[in-house]
Amino acid sequence: MINIGIIGFGYWGPNILRNFLGHPEVNVMQVCDLNNDRLLLVRNNYPGIKVTNNANDIFFDNNIDVVAIVTPVSSHYNLAKKALMNGKSVFVEKPFTSNSGEAVELIDIANKKNLMIMVDHTFLFTGAVKKIKEVVDGGGLGKLFYYDSVRINLGLFQHDVNVIWDLAVHDISIMDYLLDGQLPISINAVGVGHFNGKPEDVAYLTVKYKDNFIGHFHSNWLSPVKIRKTIIAGDEKMIVWNDLNSDEKVKIYDKGVHIQNDENIYDLLVSYRSGDMHVPVIPNLEALKLEVDHFVECLNNGNEPVNSGMAGLRIVKILEAANKSLKKQGQEIII
Amino acid sequence: MINIGIIGFGYWGPNILRNFLGHPEVNVMQVCDLNNDRLLLVRNNYPGIKVTNNANDIFFDNNIDVVAIVTPVSSHYNLAKKALMNGKSVFVEKPFTSNSGEAVELIDIANKKNLMIMVDHTFLFTGAVKKIKEVVDGGGLGKLFYYDSVRINLGLFQHDVNVIWDLAVHDISIMDYLLDGQLPISINAVGVGHFNGKPEDVAYLTVKYKDNFIGHFHSNWLSPVKIRKTIIAGDEKMIVWNDLNSDEKVKIYDKGVHIQNDENIYDLLVSYRSGDMHVPVIPNLEALKLEVDHFVECLNNGNEPVNSGMAGLRIVKILEAANKSLKKQGQEIII
Amino acid sequence: MINIGIIGFGYWGPNILRNFLGHPEVNVMQVCDLNNDRLLLVRNNYPGIKVTNNANDIFFDNNIDVVAIVTPVSSHYNLAKKALMNGKSVFVEKPFTSNSGEAVELIDIANKKNLMIMVDHTFLFTGAVKKIKEVVDGGGLGKLFYYDSVRINLGLFQHDVNVIWDLAVHDISIMDYLLDGQLPISINAVGVGHFNGKPEDVAYLTVKYKDNFIGHFHSNWLSPVKIRKTIIAGDEKMIVWNDLNSDEKVKIYDKGVHIQNDENIYDLLVSYRSGDMHVPVIPNLEALKLEVDHFVECLNNGNEPVNSGMAGLRIVKILEAANKSLKKQGQEIII
Amino acid sequence: MINIGIIGFGYWGPNILRNFLGHPEVNVMQVCDLNNDRLLLVRNNYPGIKVTNNANDIFFDNNIDVVAIVTPVSSHYNLAKKALMNGKSVFVEKPFTSNSGEAVELIDIANKKNLMIMVDHTFLFTGAVKKIKEVVDGGGLGKLFYYDSVRINLGLFQHDVNVIWDLAVHDISIMDYLLDGQLPISINAVGVGHFNGKPEDVAYLTVKYKDNFIGHFHSNWLSPVKIRKTIIAGDEKMIVWNDLNSDEKVKIYDKGVHIQNDENIYDLLVSYRSGDMHVPVIPNLEALKLEVDHFVECLNNGNEPVNSGMAGLRIVKILEAANKSLKKQGQEIII
Repeated sequence: MINIGIIGFGYWGPNILRNFLGHPEVNVMQVCDLNNDRLLLVRNNYPGIKVTNNANDIFFDNNIDVVAIVTPVSSHYNLAKKALMNGKSVFVEKPFTSNSGEAVELIDIANKKNLMIMVDHTFLFTGAVKKIKEVVDGGGLGKLFYYDSVRINLGLFQHDVNVIWDLAVHDISIMDYLLDGQLPISINAVGVGHFNGKPEDVAYLTVKYKDNFIGHFHSNWLSPVKIRKTIIAGDEKMIVWNDLNSDEKVKIYDKGVHIQNDENIYDLLVSYRSGDMHVPVIPNLEALKLEVDHFVECLNNGNEPVNSGMAGLRIVKILEAANKSLKKQGQEIII
Repeated sequence: MINIGIIGFGYWGPNILRNFLGHPEVNVMQVCDLNNDRLLLVRNNYPGIKVTNNANDIFFDNNIDVVAIVTPVSSHYNLAKKALMNGKSVFVEKPFTSNSGEAVELIDIANKKNLMIMVDHTFLFTGAVKKIKEVVDGGGLGKLFYYDSVRINLGLFQHDVNVIWDLAVHDISIMDYLLDGQLPISINAVGVGHFNGKPEDVAYLTVKYKDNFIGHFHSNWLSPVKIRKTIIAGDEKMIVWNDLNSDEKVKIYDKGVHIQNDENIYDLLVSYRSGDMHVPVIPNLEALKLEVDHFVECLNNGNEPVNSGMAGLRIVKILEAANKSLKKQGQEIII
Repeated sequence: MINIGIIGFGYWGPNILRNFLGHPEVNVMQVCDLNNDRLLLVRNNYPGIKVTNNANDIFFDNNIDVVAIVTPVSSHYNLAKKALMNGKSVFVEKPFTSNSGEAVELIDIANKKNLMIMVDHTFLFTGAVKKIKEVVDGGGLGKLFYYDSVRINLGLFQHDVNVIWDLAVHDISIMDYLLDGQLPISINAVGVGHFNGKPEDVAYLTVKYKDNFIGHFHSNWLSPVKIRKTIIAGDEKMIVWNDLNSDEKVKIYDKGVHIQNDENIYDLLVSYRSGDMHVPVIPNLEALKLEVDHFVECLNNGNEPVNSGMAGLRIVKILEAANKSLKKQGQEIII
Repeated sequence: MINIGIIGFGYWGPNILRNFLGHPEVNVMQVCDLNNDRLLLVRNNYPGIKVTNNANDIFFDNNIDVVAIVTPVSSHYNLAKKALMNGKSVFVEKPFTSNSGEAVELIDIANKKNLMIMVDHTFLFTGAVKKIKEVVDGGGLGKLFYYDSVRINLGLFQHDVNVIWDLAVHDISIMDYLLDGQLPISINAVGVGHFNGKPEDVAYLTVKYKDNFIGHFHSNWLSPVKIRKTIIAGDEKMIVWNDLNSDEKVKIYDKGVHIQNDENIYDLLVSYRSGDMHVPVIPNLEALKLEVDHFVECLNNGNEPVNSGMAGLRIVKILEAANKSLKKQGQEIII
């Protein structure tokens, strides 16, 4: 049985609690939040769980094996460090930390103490991303051309970070997963904040990889329409993933582009091909449940999770470079 | 009666010919193309029009008042200059010229000789753009936040220029029109070409204006799906223009974002508002017909067209800066 | 405080329980179900509520004021009668009863005993239907032409009744509400069952009203796609309600049809008009919560609910006539 | 070379003319219309074609082999009869004739004189219908459940016939083609006309076949939105054909319904299955061109066209029964 303490019971906390509770090998012992109204919610619905305002009650509880940190990013480093120092594995919200230095330090501590870190990149556990990963790994797309993602809506969900850290973080972690952790060569980011003293609310991030593979992310808190659309194109097939379309989430286009290498001809010929389109059935399971399963399994077997601290670090490196490029008016930042 | 000679009878030429022919005050006298098959098309359908392989037949015909140049951009400067030098007004395809220097020179000649230049930015004459212009000019959107446009499809239509010059040129001219010719402060562009020796086929262009107004253009020849979607957002209302949706092309969202300026409070409060959505009826007229009407009217009255040489020059300046930024890996180019 | 007992805790029961529980003036005292697993669900989540296999525990509990009957339609009559005979008001699932005779008898008993009956036509309390009712009542549509509804999906949800009783019942009650309880003149229904011994799984129901107003309902358990689409057309405006479109549920078209009454002309002229389209904002509230509010309010004030037993009876009359027409191969049944 | 005369040059006539002209083995000799403005159109664009107001000029021209009749349905019988009597094969607009008696007579004459009749059911030659036919013929759908079609829009295109004869005629001919000319057992039709002295403008037609296969057609001239949507469902796969969706016209759902025949169990179990969805690529060719190719080929080889007079007769029989049922308030008409 794995004993868990949860720190932070805001918007996402109840989902974390419910899914850990739902796992047969997990026992949720404590929930900590600074807001007593939130704690009352826990007490009323789950009288068996201890609630507290003081995170130390969790850190210093010797029965607790794992701390789930479901707080704003600025607090992740301190809370995670304390948890690790007290011998507890960590499940932490994304983005992992405020900067890569913090992430490296936490990973080091975990390694030394043989503890596990999992960063809550929930999207990796959705049916859509698993299906896309399957297609990409199978080589079905051919040589990859680009990854383009639009994640926009009306509403500012995060106050302490800019829109890239709030929204593009999802897309970056998905792309990182599809590329098996390959780091980009460089980053460009442009964006503006429309309200004095507030972070960027509209931003565009570009990442470049070797072989002319390019990624681009449009993040936006000021859009009248909600869009969650990603295109992943290769020279053999192309995928359009519309996460808001419940029936046709992932479309696989048998479309491609080829270049004829007739060396006698000066001008290379580009030819386009259009074939059928395919919409695979995607099982409708809760991603967070599968993530918790993966967490417990990795903890039991000592395996490294796909969303390990190292994965979290790679995402933070890109976010960090994005901020640097934003400040330099879009200048390319080599990673 | 205005006598016209048309140079270039490729993909777009027949539309130009048909619309000039359809105007009661225009007389199409000659059509020139290097390809005899294209000229045969003209001869079979319009036996009264003279056809030629030699553009000089048009330049040196004293009865011709106007030359329409419907050729690739690299030839615009030479052909337009010859036409102007021979006392003829010019209707020229977009983009106006290959660089701003050429555009400036052509405008100078036209001014000295009291001739007119119109650049064929056809989109300005569509019902959708006219309706959006009406809303923007009426102040309905409030303070403008951003202009975001996606213009992507499968297929490389231009071989001599990159995808920004082929596709974003439409969006840039529309934005220029909506902003009454205001020039951006700076440009960033990133992009890649996936085929050796070919220009960029996927590119992202950002333009920044004063007051944190930002424009962004996604141009792409390698997309499995065709998308033509523009969002124009202000703090009072927001527009989504989907040019492929015939029934609901322009959607006006009564959505807005406001910031409360309570000076006693340290933290500014951002509030969001969602109201009704409105789809105005848009008359279904051929844009090129309205453009030809505007051309004839300006020629008769001596007015400057909305898509004058000056407008064409502003677009070329942005395209030129985009190429410069592409070469400098996305670095900001001040205009 | 109103004390309630709930009979039936299947698919819909938990929603009924949660919403009655959520009302400050309601006290849920008992839940009855024949299935002990379902009762265990209640006991685990709501230890304060008494559970039982015996409905008599509810009927004979003098503290209980209201019985909610959330069981298959075939049991409604017996359970509701017993509840009423024991002096309890009734909240009953739709369709009200298996035939109109039963409905009439229940209404009679309720009237004599001064008790209330509410039939759970939840859709009447959705934001979409409220908005449509507002437009229709305001006369905005002009003279009504027709009501056409498609409610189809893959899946047989009811085993004891045919697809009209399962799906069209929603549409019939909505149309009844919009027409203020006006009864149709006649009914036609055609349909087939594709599995031996099973009721009709695809069926089409037509209702005719005076002044050539016609309603038509397509109900289908064998559709590969889920559709919930209703058109309500008048000569001034027309509404399209797509219940699966979360952002644009109700579209109001400023389109109309007029006939010119030039008496000198033999042939009447029909002219069509197309104007703007409008999507009103619809508050996102839970319909069942609003229905419970209405229930409590009517109980307190002695008002008749919009979804009273009389409304339920009108719906049953139409369903009953539909079955009769089905048996007579679509023959018109006068109501 | 086949010499053709065309009678009727209204809305559809120019398409007929253009496609016959485009065929290398066809020579269009004359066009007849009562309206001189229409004839002027022909003269201006095709100076080589003789124009006339008098159909006899075509009937009595011995060089003419084929008469294309592109006039309202009420005139088909007289014109076609005259053409056949004068030894000419006939290409005639749909519906074939005003009643089945006329159709039978024309077919008889053609048979005796060894002439051909083709009825212009253009839809049979579209890529979408050809693809669906391929799937149905291959048995991919399994046992057929139903055919449901919605063909609605704003606008009354025909004045002499009701909306079933104008719109459902397309769907009936497509279904007839898919079923290889199998006739239904019975017909029900309900509908209303909303304008005095005008035919039905909203109507619903049901056709029943053996083995519980059912077809249903919603035809409507008073809809604010244009819909062209057909579902063809079997127990193995199901097709949704949306003719207005240019990229995803035909969707093939790997969804099915099965019944378990466990004889020991009283209650049969119905189980549903959901798999992938597939969108086949459909070549974008003009249907009318392919129909003209088929016409010429059948004329040359003496084959019976898929859209022969016999096919036209079957469609007319259904339309005729629809009118009978409409008059009897939806009563079933046995065919």
